[in-house]
Amino acid sequence: MFRISIKGIYLKELMNVLTAMVDEGKLNITQEGISVRAVDPANVAMVAVNLEKEAFESFYATDGVIGIDLTKLSSFTDDTTNEDVVELELDEVAHKLKILVRGLTYTMSLLDPNNIRKEPKMPELDLPVNILLNGTDFKYGMKACEKVGDYIYFAMDLDKSEFNISAAGDTDDVVLRIPIEASRITKISNAKAMFASDYLTKIQKLVEKTTDLKIVMGTDYPIKLSFPIAEGKGRVEYMIAPRVEAEGDKK
Amino acid sequence: MFRISIKGIYLKELMNVLTAMVDEGKLNITQEGISVRAVDPANVAMVAVNLEKEAFESFYATDGVIGIDLTKLSSFTDDTTNEDVVELELDEVAHKLKILVRGLTYTMSLLDPNNIRKEPKMPELDLPVNILLNGTDFKYGMKACEKVGDYIYFAMDLDKSEFNISAAGDTDDVVLRIPIEASRITKISNAKAMFASDYLTKIQKLVEKTTDLKIVMGTDYPIKLSFPIAEGKGRVEYMIAPRVEAEGDKK
Amino acid sequence: MFRISIKGIYLKELMNVLTAMVDEGKLNITQEGISVRAVDPANVAMVAVNLEKEAFESFYATDGVIGIDLTKLSSFTDDTTNEDVVELELDEVAHKLKILVRGLTYTMSLLDPNNIRKEPKMPELDLPVNILLNGTDFKYGMKACEKVGDYIYFAMDLDKSEFNISAAGDTDDVVLRIPIEASRITKISNAKAMFASDYLTKIQKLVEKTTDLKIVMGTDYPIKLSFPIAEGKGRVEYMIAPRVEAEGDKK
Repeated sequence: MFRISIKGIYLKELMNVLTAMVDEGKLNITQEGISVRAVDPANVAMVAVNLEKEAFESFYATDGVIGIDLTKLSSFTDDTTNEDVVELELDEVAHKLKILVRGLTYTMSLLDPNNIRKEPKMPELDLPVNILLNGTDFKYGMKACEKVGDYIYFAMDLDKSEFNISAAGDTDDVVLRIPIEASRITKISNAKAMFASDYLTKIQKLVEKTTDLKIVMGTDYPIKLSFPIAEGKGRVEYMIAPRVEAEGDKK
Repeated sequence: MFRISIKGIYLKELMNVLTAMVDEGKLNITQEGISVRAVDPANVAMVAVNLEKEAFESFYATDGVIGIDLTKLSSFTDDTTNEDVVELELDEVAHKLKILVRGLTYTMSLLDPNNIRKEPKMPELDLPVNILLNGTDFKYGMKACEKVGDYIYFAMDLDKSEFNISAAGDTDDVVLRIPIEASRITKISNAKAMFASDYLTKIQKLVEKTTDLKIVMGTDYPIKLSFPIAEGKGRVEYMIAPRVEAEGDKK
Repeated sequence: MFRISIKGIYLKELMNVLTAMVDEGKLNITQEGISVRAVDPANVAMVAVNLEKEAFESFYATDGVIGIDLTKLSSFTDDTTNEDVVELELDEVAHKLKILVRGLTYTMSLLDPNNIRKEPKMPELDLPVNILLNGTDFKYGMKACEKVGDYIYFAMDLDKSEFNISAAGDTDDVVLRIPIEASRITKISNAKAMFASDYLTKIQKLVEKTTDLKIVMGTDYPIKLSFPIAEGKGRVEYMIAPRVEAEGDKK
């Protein structure tokens, strides 16, 4: 059983952070809320999202899993306003999801969860850097780096308490140096890792509004980027595999 | 003889409602104003527009018919502001239309009215549904339906005093239920008809601003959609042929 | 030696007026400021820009010439805000230009000035028309003319103190008549010349904000269009070769 209602703005946030990585996903429903974990088709990036029960206007649910075509649902939620309250209701007999908003009823077929890529296990890593950035700084650095190269370097400089976002092309290079206040550092050491810019580019648009973009990383380890959604009543975490430079790679 | 002037906003409205259906048309000029009737190249939709003399800033005309390349004229009027007063003047000797606005003179060749598709006769039909909708409701329903299928169903539900806009795709369907107040109903009975969405999509953008979108329809009959233009000093009416479902058609 | 800083808005203006014509250019640096002269690849249009020392927030320079990939630099300056102060610093050893803005350092390889097209000599012409136009009038005329033909006529009508921008297509034509006040005329006689619209179209967007677009022209002579940049602390001049009509050309 599943009958919930949620503000348009929260539902759109949920759809945006998911569709940045995957087209379909399994919604895990419990008494506590909703969560989704998914891995991108190339196995390079993972996304884990949870929305607490408190993020919903109303929430009646028994435990269960449903498969959703996220791209399709997203095309509908795009037309809801931030203030709309959207109702989602499971029709278990017909195997459909009903979406109701302002007089409109959209009946969407569910996907068979067994046909959706297996949920990834987000590995537990004890990484040596754990800091908070402003989303606008992250975006500012990413936009400049994209112009120069396909790979982005993230580096923590212990001595200067600076986080660096950089890229190097054939002839040009770019670096953004972001000073990190002590209060925004949980754990710190020197670290550097390189990532394909395309995954980061998709995230870049989404972090713009957060002042608390949490970065957890280590040298040549996966990077975790996480931030609150639904005004703190939920959270998204992305994990992206590093590209480890082979002998002879540039820079 | 033909020398008129009109506010930019009214001329743009006229061009927009016409070019939604046809590229060229015959302007019928009388002492009372201007009217155009045209049928789309596929013979599925008709448009009839009239602008009363009162819609013009000045109006000197003798009866006549002129053929206009509406797409071309529209590309010019797009650049006029709402407040501009546009003068249109017929040069009968050169067979040209002069458009004057803010120091600019655009001289456009007329089309031979005999080379333009024959004007349709808007059939007089006594249809069982005659109601008024808000343009925004119509657009809201259309936008959702377009995502699901190529055909749109309009249906009047007598018992619930509800007008329904719906679409059904292979796996999903959408319905918008619009309650209609008694004061907005002239004639009512149950009725349902299906239409190709592409014609309706073109109209959808134009009705957004009207609160008085008049819908006249019957089961498997053409639908008439009409609304005021030029702040009530004119009116446009579209008529679209239904697609009658054959045996074995979906839903 | 070269270490300067400049407001984002001025640097963007400089980049915009240059990249409208050329992809790369030689920056001539003196104690007085910076200047660039360049000719477009088809040898039809020239651009000459200068920015006085006063346009800069700080200006330390010895005389020199550096070759710049303007398109690349422009893609970076596009992301600076109008209020940002951008520092430009020459690294003579590495043959690089450093651009610093809000924590970001962009290191760009210089081009060899010898590999950049030779700077044009802006010919000294004593032309019979010298007037000032509003940029918005120029843009208004150009937008209308582009719809009708690939060539634009500029003409000064002495009797009416009118400047005319016009175009003629196969069936239609357009003319914008701009009355010129006596105070905006330095020199005046009848004159008419024709130009390919594509060069003018690139300039059209840039002149929009100026009320002092200076036009210098003569019959079948090149036209000079110039206007202030950086709030009067600099100036750009374009010169475009006329297309002289051969016998048998239209109109």
